[in-house]
Amino acid sequence: MRVYLDNNATTMVDPLVFDAMKPYFCDIYGNPNSLHAFGSDSHPALRKAMDQLYAGINAKDNDDVVVTSCATESINWVIKGIYYDSILNGPKDTIITSEVEHPAVISACKFLESLGARVIYLPVNDQGIVETNTLREHITDTTALVSIMWANNETGMLFPMKEMAAIAHEYGAFFHTDGVQAIGKVPVDVQDANVDFLSFSAHKFHGPKGVGGLYLKNGQPLTSLMHGGEHMGGRRSGTLNVPGIVGMGKAMELANAHLDMENSTVRQLRDKLEDAILKIPDVFVVGKRDERTPNTILVSVKGIEGEAMLWDLNQKGIAASTGSACASEDLESNPVMEAIGAEADLAHTALRLSLSRFTTQEEIDYTIDALNTAVVRLRAISSTYSYAPSWHKSGL
Amino acid sequence: MRVYLDNNATTMVDPLVFDAMKPYFCDIYGNPNSLHAFGSDSHPALRKAMDQLYAGINAKDNDDVVVTSCATESINWVIKGIYYDSILNGPKDTIITSEVEHPAVISACKFLESLGARVIYLPVNDQGIVETNTLREHITDTTALVSIMWANNETGMLFPMKEMAAIAHEYGAFFHTDGVQAIGKVPVDVQDANVDFLSFSAHKFHGPKGVGGLYLKNGQPLTSLMHGGEHMGGRRSGTLNVPGIVGMGKAMELANAHLDMENSTVRQLRDKLEDAILKIPDVFVVGKRDERTPNTILVSVKGIEGEAMLWDLNQKGIAASTGSACASEDLESNPVMEAIGAEADLAHTALRLSLSRFTTQEEIDYTIDALNTAVVRLRAISSTYSYAPSWHKSGL
Repeated sequence: MRVYLDNNATTMVDPLVFDAMKPYFCDIYGNPNSLHAFGSDSHPALRKAMDQLYAGINAKDNDDVVVTSCATESINWVIKGIYYDSILNGPKDTIITSEVEHPAVISACKFLESLGARVIYLPVNDQGIVETNTLREHITDTTALVSIMWANNETGMLFPMKEMAAIAHEYGAFFHTDGVQAIGKVPVDVQDANVDFLSFSAHKFHGPKGVGGLYLKNGQPLTSLMHGGEHMGGRRSGTLNVPGIVGMGKAMELANAHLDMENSTVRQLRDKLEDAILKIPDVFVVGKRDERTPNTILVSVKGIEGEAMLWDLNQKGIAASTGSACASEDLESNPVMEAIGAEADLAHTALRLSLSRFTTQEEIDYTIDALNTAVVRLRAISSTYSYAPSWHKSGL
Repeated sequence: MRVYLDNNATTMVDPLVFDAMKPYFCDIYGNPNSLHAFGSDSHPALRKAMDQLYAGINAKDNDDVVVTSCATESINWVIKGIYYDSILNGPKDTIITSEVEHPAVISACKFLESLGARVIYLPVNDQGIVETNTLREHITDTTALVSIMWANNETGMLFPMKEMAAIAHEYGAFFHTDGVQAIGKVPVDVQDANVDFLSFSAHKFHGPKGVGGLYLKNGQPLTSLMHGGEHMGGRRSGTLNVPGIVGMGKAMELANAHLDMENSTVRQLRDKLEDAILKIPDVFVVGKRDERTPNTILVSVKGIEGEAMLWDLNQKGIAASTGSACASEDLESNPVMEAIGAEADLAHTALRLSLSRFTTQEEIDYTIDALNTAVVRLRAISSTYSYAPSWHKSGL
């Protein structure tokens, strides 16, 4: 049996999404900006896709949703655009983000620090979230942008969007959220949350790789990351990726159509898996269950290196992760585990299991068996677990 | 009959390319950076695709070919990266480019001017190309980068890469070329031309939209445009677009396999069409035939607005262009026509016809008939052609 439990890294393209994309490779292939039928043939599908994107996050007509190549691009665009507009050519001087953001946010901020911008990386509590009070302690009138993720990629923990956006606005700062892990898992309503910018990526909600988007409230002007032709109203240049856009629109529609299922069937399967894991001695799951996306578990299995666990599971056809795939080729400790203050040893024992609407009951049962077997085998050969009984009894 | 003669704007995905991509949407969908079989299942195809890209432009093992989302991204990366590395944090102060570059180059340069960089836009001669002497007149030891396209998107005119790269290197400047219109039409050998950077885009050579690349000689370090995770050796962040990369590799292989055909069959069809056009009175084709890519004609049909001609052709199922699709939603005059010094009226009469290896003899015959009919109809109702006989006899 093959079981894919790494849906926070990427997802299978829904076959319905692929069907929607198919005609736009070899049949309706014109450049939509062209003044002929080969170009305009794609317009109905593009309009439909844009409608699906707007509806999916409750964007209004005077908001902009701009298609990009991925959330990393959207994030780089917002962070660098705000730097140019509000810091280099404006009265502000600081960007506030958190210690547990995706590498795209952290790396873009580090780059801006090299250009002279001030960046504050807010710490998280033992649940792995930034508390609103922490933001209040650091924000000032010279804060240009607050960038806090909607849901954490490692833990699934949900951040208080509405409250944080409100605090940012109190101080005249823009609020951006990396919504990559939220779309399709919890309701994402940009009006209700009142965010200024939202980044998302199709391949995290059963759409294709290589396409994402940026929501800009009221069409907020923002210096482009990619200058060039007049595409996307001059906001993001580059020939439109027609099949990608069509696929992302369809994927957004399906994500919202399955939101109830995500929060019932998927959540129940996740809870079943989590309950079984919690029966294993000396394990620690990060974050309260009800405050997480319904598909995610980040667990520390004491005495077992995350990579060793992945290996055993992989041998049985099960795909999991030690954390973000964006840094997983390095055998580093889990950064969220570190941020919540876990000891270094513990941060190396992280295992992330992330389900999707395609995950079945049978797959979860199979995974529970495989996990139990792996824990017994790996702890029997673990130097830290076997030889450090006082450590493994100490709790976190 | 439907005839697609706008291949410089975008091309049909070759069905063989689509076949190569297909498994990577719904079947082999893992994140290639993940440490499990769902991720590594895509590695053989990715390796093959990268080999195809390296082979296609004759990149060496110690060179880098980095996959991006399009040539616009590659171009923005080079121009802004060099600004950070050689101008803002280095001893140089100037970027040299030409007046007839793609909007991605021009707009990125304009943005750098707003940041204080000096940019020189070299003029072109009456053939629409930058002469090497013109570059010599402007380059100095403080030139950071020379960015000149390999082949022009409007005229197909080929620029003297080898000579220009050599001049840039004499002055310690990097040489970048926008190779978008050259791949698949003429041999593109980065070793022979000795360029430092080459940008390309899959959808211009029968690959998918939404994926492109940047060649960096000897893996030249360059500040990233998109900061984030450790993808592409940390050079370009964002989850790898696996089907896009696989498709681009296959498209590159096929482009090179068809290079002879492009320069025989396609060239003959282009020449046949051009010969027929030249029989129409008062037309003017830009650029010597042998110095152009074999698929392109940019013609001015006096007295007929380019858009009017497009409309008539479109009514008969024929797709052509007034110039770059990247700005074609604006009814502006053709910028290359303007750069070569054509009168304003003439620059509005540009018609670009661009063929591909999928263009047939029958389609060209049909187009010749349609063009002749359109010219007669449109000149009969043209205010400039009917009422200005002295003008139309004056030649260019």
